[in-house]
Amino acid sequence: MTTARRDTYTPETLLSVAVRVFNERGYDGTSMEHLSRAAGISKSSIYHHVAGKEELLRRAVSRALDGLFGILDEEHARVGRAAGRLEYVVRRMVEVLIAELPYVTLLLRVRGNTATERWALERRREFDHRVAALLEAAAEDGDVRDDIEGRLATRLVFGMINSIVEWYRPDGRGAGEREVADAVARLVFGGLRKDG
Amino acid sequence: MTTARRDTYTPETLLSVAVRVFNERGYDGTSMEHLSRAAGISKSSIYHHVAGKEELLRRAVSRALDGLFGILDEEHARVGRAAGRLEYVVRRMVEVLIAELPYVTLLLRVRGNTATERWALERRREFDHRVAALLEAAAEDGDVRDDIEGRLATRLVFGMINSIVEWYRPDGRGAGEREVADAVARLVFGGLRKDG
Repeated sequence: MTTARRDTYTPETLLSVAVRVFNERGYDGTSMEHLSRAAGISKSSIYHHVAGKEELLRRAVSRALDGLFGILDEEHARVGRAAGRLEYVVRRMVEVLIAELPYVTLLLRVRGNTATERWALERRREFDHRVAALLEAAAEDGDVRDDIEGRLATRLVFGMINSIVEWYRPDGRGAGEREVADAVARLVFGGLRKDG
Repeated sequence: MTTARRDTYTPETLLSVAVRVFNERGYDGTSMEHLSRAAGISKSSIYHHVAGKEELLRRAVSRALDGLFGILDEEHARVGRAAGRLEYVVRRMVEVLIAELPYVTLLLRVRGNTATERWALERRREFDHRVAALLEAAAEDGDVRDDIEGRLATRLVFGMINSIVEWYRPDGRGAGEREVADAVARLVFGGLRKDG
């Protein structure tokens, strides 16, 4: 990455470098100096593209959030019984998480120290609520068990899905995107027990 | 905490202060100065109790690891069909995680920069393997589905359980230890689908 020539930088490529550094050092622990060194361009060249590191953070978490909220607009998330829509959303969440791995990783690590971070947390909560509402609708339809409180169930399912960022490596050696999405959907809806 | 008198400190109480600071600032970001300020005692008083911050880390993660490995020695984890033992272990993991919340939180955040951290990661992996072996035994017995690769299933189940440290607050307002353990056991073994 450090061999990239300064004039080849676009806001997109700069963003991908910034996200890598944010994930390695933490957003708070990253200075413009760190970004400049990682990108191999001067700080003033970075300021040519963006107003500062908070703008890079906003763009990065927006990309993750757009991916997640985009799922809810897809036809299979809007049409049909709530349980089927929920299963579709869970599977697609895994796919988006893997497709946008560094961006979602960053989103999940946001703490809330800046306005942008607080906004990102607020949007995450909104997404969680939309999925929780789907789960509750499925429970009302009688398709999903109602002996686990809806918010608790949503938290646990999100916990399982989000934990994928901790170990998934897109090197083609471990389980692929499809295999992980299938595994999560089977576990979340059917559980481990055979014929259970 | 800062009002505690220096002569009331024991290795135990010092440990609980250290774990809180490690979880807030990160282990790497914590200096003896930070610990001294948080405990309200001088650095030399801390050195009276321990050799340094790495010893505090080792004691703290040992407490979490002893709690987790202790589960595997309990009768219900050793006797009976593998599936029943696995369900017992999953439920107890949730209970230990909640009972030792700050210690397990620290264990889960360990990175591997020091010998103690690498040792802790190694022990965590060992625990994961023990539980994965139980899951594979249950699959061989035909009690647990075999259409999800064992290591992947273990990772996802651990992901769900470990995510509890992100939101569980022992303030008595949210779900209690028992309710969370029940919810995890139901989800992991039975899944969300009704009569599924």
